[in-house]
Amino acid sequence: MRNVTKDNITDVFKSYMAASTDARTREVMNALVQHMHDFAREVNLTHDEWRKGIAFLEGCAAIESEDHHEFVLASDVLGLSSLVDMLHSRPDATSSSVLGPFHVSGAPPLAVGGDMKRHYGGPVLLAQGTIRDTDGNPIPNAELDIWQTAPNGMYASQDDEQDTFSFHGLMTVGEDGRYAFTTVKPVEYTVPSDGPVGDILRACGRHPWRPSHLHYIVKAPGFKTLVTEIFPEDDPYLDQDTVFGVRDDLVMTYVEKPASDFPEGMAISGTVDAPFLSVEFDVTLARA
Amino acid sequence: MRNVTKDNITDVFKSYMAASTDARTREVMNALVQHMHDFAREVNLTHDEWRKGIAFLEGCAAIESEDHHEFVLASDVLGLSSLVDMLHSRPDATSSSVLGPFHVSGAPPLAVGGDMKRHYGGPVLLAQGTIRDTDGNPIPNAELDIWQTAPNGMYASQDDEQDTFSFHGLMTVGEDGRYAFTTVKPVEYTVPSDGPVGDILRACGRHPWRPSHLHYIVKAPGFKTLVTEIFPEDDPYLDQDTVFGVRDDLVMTYVEKPASDFPEGMAISGTVDAPFLSVEFDVTLARA
Ligand SMILES: [Fe+2]
Ligand SMILES: [Fe+2]
Repeated sequence: MRNVTKDNITDVFKSYMAASTDARTREVMNALVQHMHDFAREVNLTHDEWRKGIAFLEGCAAIESEDHHEFVLASDVLGLSSLVDMLHSRPDATSSSVLGPFHVSGAPPLAVGGDMKRHYGGPVLLAQGTIRDTDGNPIPNAELDIWQTAPNGMYASQDDEQDTFSFHGLMTVGEDGRYAFTTVKPVEYTVPSDGPVGDILRACGRHPWRPSHLHYIVKAPGFKTLVTEIFPEDDPYLDQDTVFGVRDDLVMTYVEKPASDFPEGMAISGTVDAPFLSVEFDVTLARA
Repeated sequence: MRNVTKDNITDVFKSYMAASTDARTREVMNALVQHMHDFAREVNLTHDEWRKGIAFLEGCAAIESEDHHEFVLASDVLGLSSLVDMLHSRPDATSSSVLGPFHVSGAPPLAVGGDMKRHYGGPVLLAQGTIRDTDGNPIPNAELDIWQTAPNGMYASQDDEQDTFSFHGLMTVGEDGRYAFTTVKPVEYTVPSDGPVGDILRACGRHPWRPSHLHYIVKAPGFKTLVTEIFPEDDPYLDQDTVFGVRDDLVMTYVEKPASDFPEGMAISGTVDAPFLSVEFDVTLARA
């Protein structure tokens, strides 16, 4: 098209695509550019604003590294990461939630009933539940990958004080689908806000906080892998998670119980001499 | 919002924005995220596709530098740069077109009638015209910043064979608003396609070519600065400029004339002994 105008440019873009283009590529690229152009037309995007957008991307590029994923963070705080999760969450299964940047592969095995709290202070948190299929039957030998912050709000990979797999554990549940472990209650933390994404949060008058959560990845052969999180219902940031991760069915009551109620059969049974927190969280996996 | 869903997440995003947020920031960010979310919902964007998008941005980041602006290039080939130009082009003035990455500040003065061709081979191109206001009156002493490729398709900044300001010139037009200079006809060239943007072009079955063009920036006190380009009407890429820069009023006939028609008063008058090309291109500036 020789006479490109602000009104026909989107069609011109589409007309440039070769007939041989993969159908899904065509669908995604055409929709992406349609929305990008509609956005620019709708707000009458100025050159200055376009330059700010380019400067934002270049600013992300300048600090992007193996340990700092500013583009993922941008997707997180704009809600895109959570939206993609929800688009592919199975309605008959436990809701998925954001993976986040702190999962590590190769976590050490954690036996059912094992302990991740170790020498850390504060009340014990006992987390347990059953992994089930959508008919309610336990899934034997499902694999549960667990990670969380230390009481200082940092993941092991962020914190020189912690060893590599501190507060990371990989559990194979029993024949009955039951899992259980002890730990400390994770704390609220902030996403990194010292880069261009932090500038966006500040420009929008937003905070960088996430509510307390335990991360789980639950896998079993024949089932869709579930990446999810569990939140305590009394968290002050539950209604304004900066990465939009909270779902109704992931909000749990963490019940305080006397030491005398601490169950047998846990790695630290017999050593608990103060009130502890208990959370029961069952997981439903959908078939693959 | 505690129960974020794929249907309410866009409203949740908007609800996070502080009441004190600057009105334009709110408008632009809300529209950006509305379109981003609508895009994801419309195509049911998968995790794999999301990861490809992140990998695209990270790939751009990896090669972004002072001399290589991959994010600007992405905006160019997706038509966003041209669209922003057209949104702010004045309908009563000459159309604007893309600045591109090859403009340099500090070009040497070029007198009216001056020459940029120097020792380069091929026919002389004589470009001339008048800078006028929207009432048709000449604008005395307007400033014309000109740049183009050498016959090898490269701009000075890309090419070790050329000196810094080769095929760059800064002209102050006369009291009559007239400009004129001699040069070689610029050639078609390709935008860089060795990075992630090239991968997009290939995935869409698109070529990286731009039609031949002369770049102008035209400035005069009291007038809106015009960034534009001039294209020859017989260029094979006129209908498929990969950065969407062609506008009807920027397409000109480059007329071949005998040496005997070469005018007096040019720097190289009297030395032209072969047919030359002539293009007449008048520029209309809108008041600021
Ligand atoms: Fe987390
Ligand atoms: Fe150019």
